[in-house]
Amino acid sequence: MALSWHVRCMTQWPVPLPNLPADVHPALAATAIAASAAYDGARRGFTRGQLREEVADGADGTPTMRVDAIVEAAIAEAAAEAGANLLSEEAGFIDNGSAATLVVDPVDGSANAAMGVPLSCFAGALVIDDQPVEALTVWFDTGRAWSAHAGRPTPYRTTGRTALKGASMCMMRPKRGSEDAWMRVANQAERIRILATTCLEAVLVAEGAVDAFADPGSDTHRLMDLIAALVTVPAAGGALLDLRGRPLTFDVDLSRRWSGIAAATPALADELITTILG
Amino acid sequence: MALSWHVRCMTQWPVPLPNLPADVHPALAATAIAASAAYDGARRGFTRGQLREEVADGADGTPTMRVDAIVEAAIAEAAAEAGANLLSEEAGFIDNGSAATLVVDPVDGSANAAMGVPLSCFAGALVIDDQPVEALTVWFDTGRAWSAHAGRPTPYRTTGRTALKGASMCMMRPKRGSEDAWMRVANQAERIRILATTCLEAVLVAEGAVDAFADPGSDTHRLMDLIAALVTVPAAGGALLDLRGRPLTFDVDLSRRWSGIAAATPALADELITTILG
Repeated sequence: MALSWHVRCMTQWPVPLPNLPADVHPALAATAIAASAAYDGARRGFTRGQLREEVADGADGTPTMRVDAIVEAAIAEAAAEAGANLLSEEAGFIDNGSAATLVVDPVDGSANAAMGVPLSCFAGALVIDDQPVEALTVWFDTGRAWSAHAGRPTPYRTTGRTALKGASMCMMRPKRGSEDAWMRVANQAERIRILATTCLEAVLVAEGAVDAFADPGSDTHRLMDLIAALVTVPAAGGALLDLRGRPLTFDVDLSRRWSGIAAATPALADELITTILG
Repeated sequence: MALSWHVRCMTQWPVPLPNLPADVHPALAATAIAASAAYDGARRGFTRGQLREEVADGADGTPTMRVDAIVEAAIAEAAAEAGANLLSEEAGFIDNGSAATLVVDPVDGSANAAMGVPLSCFAGALVIDDQPVEALTVWFDTGRAWSAHAGRPTPYRTTGRTALKGASMCMMRPKRGSEDAWMRVANQAERIRILATTCLEAVLVAEGAVDAFADPGSDTHRLMDLIAALVTVPAAGGALLDLRGRPLTFDVDLSRRWSGIAAATPALADELITTILG
């Protein structure tokens, strides 16, 4: 028993409180803080096997891991207290009678979060009527936060790269049917990463740590996987597009899917789309 | 000027001091602390473009980025003060007249470290005569440390997985000539990550966050890329092997190369080798 206690202590690193800028909207801030605290509690209270266990089917049609359910419950409580509506992947749309809706991915990179790979985050946007006006992304394991307001420049900038050849890329993994598209991008890029957390990869594009992120055609992304990037990446000088040109608009229908492309410039986004579509 | 100062502050997150267990050998601890402090200073003092600039050719035959040179200089000073020899990728073998040699990768994941992708680490082993007796890996961006002593169990354990089908894998990126081997592994694994920092990926295997890490045949690894894992992964119940069966032995000849496989169990390591070799 002593050994197993020790194992848990060593492997369950603490999740810090988010390090938030002062001008984050209080409802977004409250949900992000609630999410970090809930994920910290989940890591302390459950084994990795328990965290990844599928406990329900989400409103988006995909199974809900225990870690997602725990964090989303905390977010729903914080959103209700703040008087905002919530659109979240497991619960769907929760109408708290407000013009403001928080569109939230409680745990982006759920598999990482459950397994103990320290790459997962909270990502959310504040939508007024149907317009996203502000976004917040928090990397759980470090508390680092990226905040952006629509139409205002951010303090961080993309790299400004315009060409794929020689680029540093984050990508989703290749899947059956997308191997060729994936390899066409990989063979031109100088560097390839697969972090398996779209929202964190998108803020790395925004702050200029990588040149671009791409889903090579798997139509994996739901609205909450992209909406924070939709505000943050353009505010930093980059582009956030769907591979197949579908408009990214607010919609409570969680069956919609996109293949997100986040790039340092519109030119790089276009070249990625052309390369992936072949 | 004010804006550029602000940009630098936002993107150059602080590097904390390593969070070291009490029983780490003082020479290993001193070099790890020196490395973290030097990387923190480098991030504050230089732009990302300056950090990735190639400033010399290392003793291992590969170009040395500025970030590597800065961190290694700090390590060399700490090793000399501690009275230990040093074998490092840029400087080669520095004989300080001791039976103890520190074999160190000053910055594992140099490209990440220079670009601002927060996945890079210090990794080192203490070698007495020609036997690695202790290893230390420190993830720079969080200060998390993984310590192991040869022949002693660690407080963390691998997942214990024995089969590739359904596994969570970290891999090096595919390169020209290794695409087929890479895709054979990817098509069987449930999850694939490319973090581009072998030493950090190896400790994630040791602590059971992923099932295995593999270089699919590119012969990229030098002794200092694998020696910490050579102590840490077996101490946690796993296996650390070369893809082509070459023994991993202490050698000051830095032209030697391996393709490292770190796996939760010897059985999984063997299946990975068979799958990659086709």
